[in-house]
Amino acid sequence: MTEARPHSPATSGPLPPSLQFGDQGRLRHLLTIEGLSRPLITEILDTAESFLGVNAQTVKKVPLLRGKTVMNLFFEASTRTRTTFELAAKRLSADVLNINISTSATVKGESLLDTLRNLEAMLVDMFVVRHADSGAAHFIARHVAPHVSVLNAGDGRHAHPTQALLDMFTIRHHKGDFSALRVAIVGDILHSRVARSQIHALNVLGAGEVRVIAPRTLLPVSVEELGVHVFHDIRAGLKDVDVIIMLRLQRERMDSGLLPSEHEFYQLWGLNEERLALAAPEAIVMHPGPANRGVEIDSRVADGPQSVILKQVTYGIAVRMAVMSMIMGGSVNQGASQ
Amino acid sequence: MTEARPHSPATSGPLPPSLQFGDQGRLRHLLTIEGLSRPLITEILDTAESFLGVNAQTVKKVPLLRGKTVMNLFFEASTRTRTTFELAAKRLSADVLNINISTSATVKGESLLDTLRNLEAMLVDMFVVRHADSGAAHFIARHVAPHVSVLNAGDGRHAHPTQALLDMFTIRHHKGDFSALRVAIVGDILHSRVARSQIHALNVLGAGEVRVIAPRTLLPVSVEELGVHVFHDIRAGLKDVDVIIMLRLQRERMDSGLLPSEHEFYQLWGLNEERLALAAPEAIVMHPGPANRGVEIDSRVADGPQSVILKQVTYGIAVRMAVMSMIMGGSVNQGASQ
Amino acid sequence: MTEARPHSPATSGPLPPSLQFGDQGRLRHLLTIEGLSRPLITEILDTAESFLGVNAQTVKKVPLLRGKTVMNLFFEASTRTRTTFELAAKRLSADVLNINISTSATVKGESLLDTLRNLEAMLVDMFVVRHADSGAAHFIARHVAPHVSVLNAGDGRHAHPTQALLDMFTIRHHKGDFSALRVAIVGDILHSRVARSQIHALNVLGAGEVRVIAPRTLLPVSVEELGVHVFHDIRAGLKDVDVIIMLRLQRERMDSGLLPSEHEFYQLWGLNEERLALAAPEAIVMHPGPANRGVEIDSRVADGPQSVILKQVTYGIAVRMAVMSMIMGGSVNQGASQ
Repeated sequence: MTEARPHSPATSGPLPPSLQFGDQGRLRHLLTIEGLSRPLITEILDTAESFLGVNAQTVKKVPLLRGKTVMNLFFEASTRTRTTFELAAKRLSADVLNINISTSATVKGESLLDTLRNLEAMLVDMFVVRHADSGAAHFIARHVAPHVSVLNAGDGRHAHPTQALLDMFTIRHHKGDFSALRVAIVGDILHSRVARSQIHALNVLGAGEVRVIAPRTLLPVSVEELGVHVFHDIRAGLKDVDVIIMLRLQRERMDSGLLPSEHEFYQLWGLNEERLALAAPEAIVMHPGPANRGVEIDSRVADGPQSVILKQVTYGIAVRMAVMSMIMGGSVNQGASQ
Repeated sequence: MTEARPHSPATSGPLPPSLQFGDQGRLRHLLTIEGLSRPLITEILDTAESFLGVNAQTVKKVPLLRGKTVMNLFFEASTRTRTTFELAAKRLSADVLNINISTSATVKGESLLDTLRNLEAMLVDMFVVRHADSGAAHFIARHVAPHVSVLNAGDGRHAHPTQALLDMFTIRHHKGDFSALRVAIVGDILHSRVARSQIHALNVLGAGEVRVIAPRTLLPVSVEELGVHVFHDIRAGLKDVDVIIMLRLQRERMDSGLLPSEHEFYQLWGLNEERLALAAPEAIVMHPGPANRGVEIDSRVADGPQSVILKQVTYGIAVRMAVMSMIMGGSVNQGASQ
Repeated sequence: MTEARPHSPATSGPLPPSLQFGDQGRLRHLLTIEGLSRPLITEILDTAESFLGVNAQTVKKVPLLRGKTVMNLFFEASTRTRTTFELAAKRLSADVLNINISTSATVKGESLLDTLRNLEAMLVDMFVVRHADSGAAHFIARHVAPHVSVLNAGDGRHAHPTQALLDMFTIRHHKGDFSALRVAIVGDILHSRVARSQIHALNVLGAGEVRVIAPRTLLPVSVEELGVHVFHDIRAGLKDVDVIIMLRLQRERMDSGLLPSEHEFYQLWGLNEERLALAAPEAIVMHPGPANRGVEIDSRVADGPQSVILKQVTYGIAVRMAVMSMIMGGSVNQGASQ
């Protein structure tokens, strides 16, 4: 899929802080949690709280984005993720088109930029972008026409901002004020699409303490500089925490020799009932899904009373509706001119 | 597709009679015709009759399911069937998402139950399920959350209830009162997804006489216990019938040695004009489609004046609209709670 | 894909002039530009002009086709083309279903005609047809039920009428009155899906002069009979023209020996800045996309100030909305009867 790979060397450069924002500091793209202020994140969470009610209604639909066009540009397959964005857009009354780029644009040897120019000329309002390469969404946001917004639905290891936002939503919805909370993130921090975003968001929101629990081989270098406490022993790390965020183990990483085996991983880093008992009594257990049962988490914990894993899915729709409506709802006078 | 196969031994167990019904006997799932009372089937057919008018209008749309989410969960490809359910849902103003499970859920090694839990957490209102294994829709209905309904769009040989219902609709629409009718079902009863459902529905609706016409090798054992008259000679079987339901021959069964050849099958069991003349003068000819012309039916009959085969397709949309609206329309106060 | 190939010898026969028109000369199908009168083409362009405004609005949606069902029947993959029709239909508030025939209808050995009969029995209002064989859309239009319209989205080399119409729209929108214009069509006329349609439309609209610029091997025999001036030298051909329409080079033709190499083609027939300077000062550059940069066109021209290539995409949505609404909007009392 050569064509779909951003071909500018600028891709991996530093992010201009202003790229995500338009006129008067309005959110124009959502590419990463980094650069979002505490008031802005709080506004997103507040807006999502109002959509949670919409989703629970019999008529789960509001006309906020009627006549808007959302295009899901998926450069790698992810039915689950695509479905959440499609649902969020439809419940806002937008029109949704699903485009699988890997199987279409390259057929005629067209470059990614030409494809984008073409799609935006159809007067699309938002691209929801999923790509295996870090920085792909940034690359697209940098080159996109003024009337189009970009929503990053996951790129490489880099960022998956709506996942991090729905995690923050989940914590606030169940545990309230961040300043009083101890939060532990457990597992493969190094390869996680969301761990870095979660840490950043927790810091911005003023979480009392953020811990990471992982083997040395699955931690980024200088992870302490992110403002976290590092634990290599899960029992010590879970002591008295209020929130446990389990990361998904990428099984394909196993082959690389970074990890011994699923069984051994579970012995050392898996969350079971006995370890969960070390946390605060009302601690909640989170996981981005789909969980590898018996690898990073025991089924009795995943399905147990402290698990909010499935609720995260429900909240995810509301958070995506919030981001979409804040980005597109504000562009009332931004129709493309001919 | 190991993951997509229901893995509980309970799958093949007997159906609890109440599984399809919710509070106050309201239809909650539609899994099979068995267990549906005559008044309920009649109500479905009456409701479908009203939607037939909607489909004939210029604006073929009613707002009954606005804001509802219907998810087509297809574990085996069937564009034709999927399209009829998608159209029915859209004409009721529901949002529709198509999910091909075989190509998505198993990618990350997720079990079927985890996939279902995830999708229902998106606050979907209905799963339309198509699966190659008998009992798959029942399995899903047994495990689904209280706010989700299941509509069986065909599972293995077991059941395809909306097909049987549209067949009943067709008969009633064209021939009126069931008690006066002789109905013949012709062909591969043994492997048919719908023959058993048809026989059951005809009995419940009080059809005057139900005949099955088939070679011994294509009949279930103890078929007589279903309350039908068995004929091994098509000429004798068609004598004076008012309705002829041809079954689709599964060509892939040919290889099993159960059948000699398409040519020989046609000689013995195919419906041609000369045999049709043995039926009552105004008899109608039905087929679930797509017909194997020259195998189970002659083109002159399939396209002839007594054929209602294409009308069945039209009626099928109306029947699916009826079932969907009766199941989901009644759940006004059943929004999922957080 | 045997099943999907129209199997009637009548396919390649002459088009009955009336096939595209229904009662009172109303446009019923759009299969080809040929046979469309100047007033009718002008009406289409005028209607498209009004939809251009709709597309530029925040709410890019009008309820003209609410409750109508549009089915995209694509027998060959073309995400770009399919997307433009899907968007046009959705912005008119129609319901859209995408059907990939090659992967579905033939699975069960069903013939094309049976598939069509089935789909039209679902009370579809319009088939948007894309097929690799010339005449496929005509074949379907000839056999389709009275309540269904056919819109040709490209068939073989034969016709791609909405592309030709959006080209005419582009010319009129930017250059005004056709009678004063010199228009040059450059490249592979022989294999182009649209060149013949363009020439025809330009003649009907009274273009001042139509030129074709191509090597002898890429021109149809007797091309002069179409009322064009033929140039084998691009410099002479571009002299003082107001509109340059570049054709897309089908790279797969290269192998046939008709063309020497991409490099040599570019040397002889490619449009670069120096050649563009030979045209009239305000000349516009058009291309149906996706452009082969460095083969038929230089990037500095494709992205330059005289290029209207991306605007053509925007206009294309408006033109498709115009055709769809004119065809389907007029059929108010044409609901199918049961």
